[in-house]
Amino acid sequence: MANPSLLILAGDGIGPEVMAEVKKIIGWFGAKRDIAFDVSEDLVGGCAYDKHGTPLADETMAKAQEVDAVLLGAVGGPKYDKLDFSVKPERGLLRLRKEMDLYANLRPAQCFDALADFSSLKKDVVAGLDIMIVRELTSGVYFGEPRGIFTEGNERVGINTQRYTESEIARVARSAFELAKRRDNKVCSMEKANVMESGVLWREVVQEVHDKEYPDVELSHMYADAGAMQLTRWPKQFDVIVTDNLFGDLLSDLAAMLTGSLGMLPSASLGAPMANGRPKALYEPVHGSAPDIAGQGKANPIACILSFAMALRYSFDLGDEATRVEKAVEKVLADGLRTADLMGPEGGKPVSTSEMGDAVVKAL
Amino acid sequence: MANPSLLILAGDGIGPEVMAEVKKIIGWFGAKRDIAFDVSEDLVGGCAYDKHGTPLADETMAKAQEVDAVLLGAVGGPKYDKLDFSVKPERGLLRLRKEMDLYANLRPAQCFDALADFSSLKKDVVAGLDIMIVRELTSGVYFGEPRGIFTEGNERVGINTQRYTESEIARVARSAFELAKRRDNKVCSMEKANVMESGVLWREVVQEVHDKEYPDVELSHMYADAGAMQLTRWPKQFDVIVTDNLFGDLLSDLAAMLTGSLGMLPSASLGAPMANGRPKALYEPVHGSAPDIAGQGKANPIACILSFAMALRYSFDLGDEATRVEKAVEKVLADGLRTADLMGPEGGKPVSTSEMGDAVVKAL
Ligand SMILES: CC(C)[C@H](C(=O)O)[C@@H](O)C(=O)O
Ligand SMILES: CC(C)[C@H](C(=O)O)[C@@H](O)C(=O)O
Repeated sequence: MANPSLLILAGDGIGPEVMAEVKKIIGWFGAKRDIAFDVSEDLVGGCAYDKHGTPLADETMAKAQEVDAVLLGAVGGPKYDKLDFSVKPERGLLRLRKEMDLYANLRPAQCFDALADFSSLKKDVVAGLDIMIVRELTSGVYFGEPRGIFTEGNERVGINTQRYTESEIARVARSAFELAKRRDNKVCSMEKANVMESGVLWREVVQEVHDKEYPDVELSHMYADAGAMQLTRWPKQFDVIVTDNLFGDLLSDLAAMLTGSLGMLPSASLGAPMANGRPKALYEPVHGSAPDIAGQGKANPIACILSFAMALRYSFDLGDEATRVEKAVEKVLADGLRTADLMGPEGGKPVSTSEMGDAVVKAL
Repeated sequence: MANPSLLILAGDGIGPEVMAEVKKIIGWFGAKRDIAFDVSEDLVGGCAYDKHGTPLADETMAKAQEVDAVLLGAVGGPKYDKLDFSVKPERGLLRLRKEMDLYANLRPAQCFDALADFSSLKKDVVAGLDIMIVRELTSGVYFGEPRGIFTEGNERVGINTQRYTESEIARVARSAFELAKRRDNKVCSMEKANVMESGVLWREVVQEVHDKEYPDVELSHMYADAGAMQLTRWPKQFDVIVTDNLFGDLLSDLAAMLTGSLGMLPSASLGAPMANGRPKALYEPVHGSAPDIAGQGKANPIACILSFAMALRYSFDLGDEATRVEKAVEKVLADGLRTADLMGPEGGKPVSTSEMGDAVVKAL
């Protein structure tokens, strides 16, 4: 059987640096565990724009459709801030999500014991935190039409459309319920059904899917503003949260920040199963391209490494190997190794991006 | 000259209880400071629905248009959860906002020294926090058309429209810049210009208003998801935040929760100046109707009392009197008086809703 295929899109800023460390992990799996991947690489974001005049070339898009999983670093940078909306680095990422139909964005917010002091929240509020936000990723206001800036009378008007179909809601709800079954069996769905009709439909459909297909999972509903509050007040009340694309963008970033260490958090974006049974999938760290520290060996590669661990679990059914990577990360943290972003008041052993990668490989 | 007029809409749940305490304060101003108000009262929300079959009767709406300021308690409750979208308690509030054209929602997030321990955030992160969120309140996805649940093929689709005109953005930006001039002279504007064209227009117009009219105010822009993160990480970096209706809903609730004491936070919703020079205005506490504790004397009246203080400042140009009320509140807190919601680990003197109101009057 052919090796599973991986397309690496390292992107901009610190993307290539953190991805270099992931390649070490991939190398280790090939050499020591006889789990080899066919790895190819290409451009996305600003670097793709520099070369092709578009943040995602058609050939790259076609490759992404063919591989078993895509690993992405990060996109964007000040150099591209003035570009037209249609060719901004982010459009490359959004095109991947949309054309691969990656409707379920899994964003775990986990607080590592060794780093609990790092949060701006009190230790008892976040220690041991382990929630999973499932964000709808291919619809809603991100893609709804009509959209644009138009002229009406003598002024401009900016328009976007929030739009959800029943089936779009149902499929991401299923992803959330499936995940909950393997966790604490609890889903909280968030919208603004008190203000938006799309939220009313969201709530109804999530409830219907629950009642028909997952009656044993505990389901609750919360308005998204109350959700933001409750995440801040006592995040451990949640297990799985399912919400739409835009609320998910804010709420998952908020949840990430609760842990205090953005450089630690991975994400998976999953679509429907392909012919080989594997879901279409893209894995990427939650952090951005951090242009201010790019090229200085300061970036934390752990989020990207843990994104690869998610790939092992969700794309390749290698849950044990994923756990192995996660445990290795926990070990280096417990040993006190800290990239610049993790240097808190209690100190630790400062390491560079590549020293951190090497340490994880060693811990494997 | 006629007394300034106030319309009190106490609403549902704990609304009437907290409003009863505000009436004591109003009484004190009439008796002791010779500042008398013509007070009338009416219904909004669920109680209006019970009586009139609508959450805001036309006559009430007409009265609200005539008075100098509206004071609102809270709306909603489980009894009304199953009502049709169009007559839900919230629609009464939304109608007031829209028809009075209250485009600038001022939501201070302040952390009272006596209550800094109360937050889920670390004390040094929130002690002394004093930020002001200016939320656009009459447009965006709350009111944009088309909206509704439609049938397409054989499934339902939920649609809402985010829509902002240049002038809608410009006027709320001006409110934010004006406030900043009287504070720390810093405005941060939040949107998702990387994903939404309405956000692109938002950013452009805020920048234009700044460059032409307020070049001396420090202006920055942030994506709303990054804004949620930064509010969680280090909220004191902000002075005034200006954002749209939906982002403002989430971000102002998040900011409120940072302080840890929702029962303390007031809000003002302001429109254009009327013939007498006063802005159209509605004042309300940030907390909801809290049906679970209604009628038990457990509610904290301070948010509603401070909302009245905002009315003194923004509607009646009685800034010194507003400060007097705020100082009285600080005094009772420093004295250790605590309603149920404020009973933390360090204890304090437990008081009922009306005991808290009496204590504030006494401190005046
Ligand atoms: C970069 C941007 C387009 C993106 C989004 O808004 O979805 C990012 O914030 C994310 O959450 O992945
Ligand atoms: C009650 C509800 C309609 C309202 C809103 O969404 O604006 C509330 O959350 C608020 O922030 O005042």
